[in-house]
Amino acid sequence: MTDMSISQRLSDLRELMQREHLSAFVFPSTDPHQGEYVPDHWKGREFISGFNGSAGTAVVTMTSAALWTDSRYFIAAEDQLRGTEYQLMKLKIEGTPTIAEWLGKECGPGAEVALDGTCSSANSVKELIADLRKQGGITLRTNLDPLRQIWTDRPPIPESPVEIYPMKYAGEMTHDKIARVRHALRERHADGMLMSSLDDIAWTLNLRGSDVHCNPVFVSYLLISSKDVTLYINTKKLTPEIQTYLKAEGIGVAPYEDITKGLKNYFEYNILLDPDEVNYTLYKAVTREIIEEESPVKRMKTVKNATEIAGFRSAMLKDGIAMVKFLKWLTSHFPSAGEQQTNQLPAPVGEGPGVGSKSLTEISIDQKLTSLRAEQPLYRDISFDTIAGYGIHGAIVHYEATPETDIPLKPEGLLLLDSGAQYLDGTTDITRTIALGPLTDEMKHIYTLVLKGHIQIELCKFPTGSSGTQIDILARKDMWREGLNYLHGTGHGVGTYLNVHEGPHQFRMEWKPAPLVEGMTITDEPGIYLPGKFGARIENTLLITPYKETEFGKFLQFEPLTLCPIDKAPIIKEMLLQEETDWLNAYHQHVFDTLSPHLDEEEVAWLREACSAI
Amino acid sequence: MTDMSISQRLSDLRELMQREHLSAFVFPSTDPHQGEYVPDHWKGREFISGFNGSAGTAVVTMTSAALWTDSRYFIAAEDQLRGTEYQLMKLKIEGTPTIAEWLGKECGPGAEVALDGTCSSANSVKELIADLRKQGGITLRTNLDPLRQIWTDRPPIPESPVEIYPMKYAGEMTHDKIARVRHALRERHADGMLMSSLDDIAWTLNLRGSDVHCNPVFVSYLLISSKDVTLYINTKKLTPEIQTYLKAEGIGVAPYEDITKGLKNYFEYNILLDPDEVNYTLYKAVTREIIEEESPVKRMKTVKNATEIAGFRSAMLKDGIAMVKFLKWLTSHFPSAGEQQTNQLPAPVGEGPGVGSKSLTEISIDQKLTSLRAEQPLYRDISFDTIAGYGIHGAIVHYEATPETDIPLKPEGLLLLDSGAQYLDGTTDITRTIALGPLTDEMKHIYTLVLKGHIQIELCKFPTGSSGTQIDILARKDMWREGLNYLHGTGHGVGTYLNVHEGPHQFRMEWKPAPLVEGMTITDEPGIYLPGKFGARIENTLLITPYKETEFGKFLQFEPLTLCPIDKAPIIKEMLLQEETDWLNAYHQHVFDTLSPHLDEEEVAWLREACSAI
Repeated sequence: MTDMSISQRLSDLRELMQREHLSAFVFPSTDPHQGEYVPDHWKGREFISGFNGSAGTAVVTMTSAALWTDSRYFIAAEDQLRGTEYQLMKLKIEGTPTIAEWLGKECGPGAEVALDGTCSSANSVKELIADLRKQGGITLRTNLDPLRQIWTDRPPIPESPVEIYPMKYAGEMTHDKIARVRHALRERHADGMLMSSLDDIAWTLNLRGSDVHCNPVFVSYLLISSKDVTLYINTKKLTPEIQTYLKAEGIGVAPYEDITKGLKNYFEYNILLDPDEVNYTLYKAVTREIIEEESPVKRMKTVKNATEIAGFRSAMLKDGIAMVKFLKWLTSHFPSAGEQQTNQLPAPVGEGPGVGSKSLTEISIDQKLTSLRAEQPLYRDISFDTIAGYGIHGAIVHYEATPETDIPLKPEGLLLLDSGAQYLDGTTDITRTIALGPLTDEMKHIYTLVLKGHIQIELCKFPTGSSGTQIDILARKDMWREGLNYLHGTGHGVGTYLNVHEGPHQFRMEWKPAPLVEGMTITDEPGIYLPGKFGARIENTLLITPYKETEFGKFLQFEPLTLCPIDKAPIIKEMLLQEETDWLNAYHQHVFDTLSPHLDEEEVAWLREACSAI
Repeated sequence: MTDMSISQRLSDLRELMQREHLSAFVFPSTDPHQGEYVPDHWKGREFISGFNGSAGTAVVTMTSAALWTDSRYFIAAEDQLRGTEYQLMKLKIEGTPTIAEWLGKECGPGAEVALDGTCSSANSVKELIADLRKQGGITLRTNLDPLRQIWTDRPPIPESPVEIYPMKYAGEMTHDKIARVRHALRERHADGMLMSSLDDIAWTLNLRGSDVHCNPVFVSYLLISSKDVTLYINTKKLTPEIQTYLKAEGIGVAPYEDITKGLKNYFEYNILLDPDEVNYTLYKAVTREIIEEESPVKRMKTVKNATEIAGFRSAMLKDGIAMVKFLKWLTSHFPSAGEQQTNQLPAPVGEGPGVGSKSLTEISIDQKLTSLRAEQPLYRDISFDTIAGYGIHGAIVHYEATPETDIPLKPEGLLLLDSGAQYLDGTTDITRTIALGPLTDEMKHIYTLVLKGHIQIELCKFPTGSSGTQIDILARKDMWREGLNYLHGTGHGVGTYLNVHEGPHQFRMEWKPAPLVEGMTITDEPGIYLPGKFGARIENTLLITPYKETEFGKFLQFEPLTLCPIDKAPIIKEMLLQEETDWLNAYHQHVFDTLSPHLDEEEVAWLREACSAI
């Protein structure tokens, strides 16, 4: 993309704004379904600004333009906006105006500004309307998508085919799920609901797609009333087999773009929807009373049934095999990787088996890992963009290596590797931080603190219904004593061959009113990031299982699903409590026992060493 | 009170109900100010039912009567209701109807029932109205207090005099506090506020009273607008000195009963009030827009200034001296108290210095402790009813010994002693669990678990603004591993010569959106209660102080204000982590160093032993 093309686009937009008597246009980073990844068709903010980060809002007036983004993207945004007329607005930095404040100054009282109401959640638009009103009564128009006119080579909405997610993986028939949803709706005194989260729809209908990067979902809406279920979808995506299946399940089909019309008379009295998920245009199209509540499917989906749990175990076994093959391959390039060395600077590695390290980079090892995963049965895709951060890149929480940033791995320091896969029987998410050679004392200290945090979560037993907000501190308490912390959550749910981030339950410092119950998956991924130095994170995906029942109630525990050794080289053993050492040794024994029957002799030898007791 | 008097009262009430065409009357346990302790004047539920527990609601129809209370009071309520027509309704027990459900059945659709709207919070009445509407449209009348007619010897509203709380203890002038309140109101776009929490009023005005058991507050309301401040109070309570003081501070005075009238035109546009605190009658009397929010005074009050903190330290020193004198006296009656004995049943103690133990009971030791506290300068009162629970009584969380339940202490087992005092310079709250002789292994194990939980909170460092919901688990995690728990919170704020329970911040399993900040006091009081066996709780009052500031923000820590040894006899040392043992030894050294200059030789000798390292 050239700066010239951005200036041409701005000029086209302003022509349209003038015709429509609009003082400004707002482009958020979201799409009609409020998913984590946005299909190209809806990347309007990138089209108009050139900035391609996952979070950011562009605002264009007749004479100025600005882009708001958060600290993760300050450097990238500065780069990408250079040469354009966009001013970078750094979120959460003192002195940065809000979008409404800035529009108040730029456009003045009484102005009309616009945003495409289909691409923002109802709540976010309502908030913007209220904020703009305070700026001398600026009003917001929401029924115009300027990209239809000015984005001539706009990619279409994805049309990839939908496929059935078989009972042997889903474990519950669609009509049984719908019966449960209807029961939940009755409990909430709702006649029906509008579902717009793509993973909720995929789960409910036992269907999967490939419209969205890393998420096996398909673009659609679903209406469920006490009598009917209707899927709003581009019918090109439905093979005859799927059409037969939907018919058999009693699910009607209507064109995707008819949802607004379809909503109008679908429900008798009221409709449940989540205004944080449903887009503003659909929200305003509802002519019945709205019950504003989280979709009941959200929590149903997070509690895995026995079939799904078996699928997770199978996927984790395969993922563990791929990870062991990868780690054995990787460390073979770094002969000093496993040694318990100290602070001295590494000697240059120039001969022997380590020589190949010259050719390894963040991107090349990611490709190797993906190819090893792809050899496993039922592999479909990665579950998110791999974070392979070597050295100082490990300190960038959401780092994704690009050809421009890619660096070679050296036989020293730490490599942070956060990756996962979509297998038809389950989704994986694992982080390991690996010593490639000598480490500083600081690296070992930080790594061991992260490991302690990880293990304290693994060891936790808790009353059923506890929240992740209560448990989160176990991963942080030892860090806090040293004034260290990490600003992301400690863990999130994981879907069943679905989105790797599945809510609403989480481990995090902020309040999440989502109780932890038996059958949920949740990741355990504390980290510490020292900017300009290195980062360390250790992540397993856990399953919540029964622990014991006493006079004080039912207690739950975590069982690690992930099967992969945790690098022992950086551990300062004296920093571990006995219970932490015991956990690590028992986990490694379990990893070895489970994986070794599936590995060849050399791999078993490597794994035996990697899993030996400390 | 006789059963006959209850039946007479019910008959008087029903006569009135008939005249007023009411199908039922509801008597909650609350008063117009929603305080923890209710002055006798408002003990209407006790008057009509005979049940004197702190929580319970009586409901009377023309032909039936029922009383709802929680598990703490099942036994007492059964006792006290015996012989009356009241049916006991056990809250949170399967099958117990709600009050609305029961009224739906007893009174039928379309009935009118009543409750005195001045004695329940706005939110609780709104909830009851909504619940009753669902019972075939039962309506609720709220403008009738039947006690005015049927309670002929009703105690008056307290008229005890108000006193000034001097600057040397308060540390901030009233007009400065009011300026801060007004600033907070402007931030919330409020013209003013109605204050009805008695401790909020006492704090704001630097006044104290003695209208309420254990709480040095006075019955009143306060209105603050941008121009005026008016105290609604029985003027009999105001000495000339107080009147001069109020005038000088620019605070108007009006009769207590004029608050409803006074509210009407006090505010220009809107008024801030907390519908969980303000009673329904006042809430409905507001003729301006209501901003429903927590009173800003709540959080201001919890953050102690330097003068208040110095006062706390002084009060804690005195309380520690009294506690040491008491513990020395108590244990002198139980010569085997400090020994590290095991499971064998205790030998009867019949001679030597232990002989006096025969005469000690739960009530007598409480009297002794109170008399020792009363010897200390600036002592005013106890801060709550002492919980002195010996043996199986220790397992009753809210036990208060009465002449009927009082039992003698024996030279074995555990005594749980939770007590505190009001000194003019600060309020104290401390729990110790004391071995009176041989203990079982189970007692030692449980005691040590409680101690571990206590210490883990003491050791916690945390980012400023963390919530008590996040930190609470540190006290419970080791218990949870054994399927043990306690169902009360782990800690609460403590007032400055004010209520011993001060919110909104707490340590507890439930979500409390009240960030912990520097200068707050908070108790640390985990416990375990084994019904029919014994209980253990260990409590210090802590102060939140700065810890360190790093690139990850500002971190805080806890400093124990309480100065009193923690019984070492029941500790199983092997269960403690090294950091826990270290904390205990350092705390004991600090207690010894601080208290010993104020004790006589024998007391110092006793304390040296009590504080020796383990």
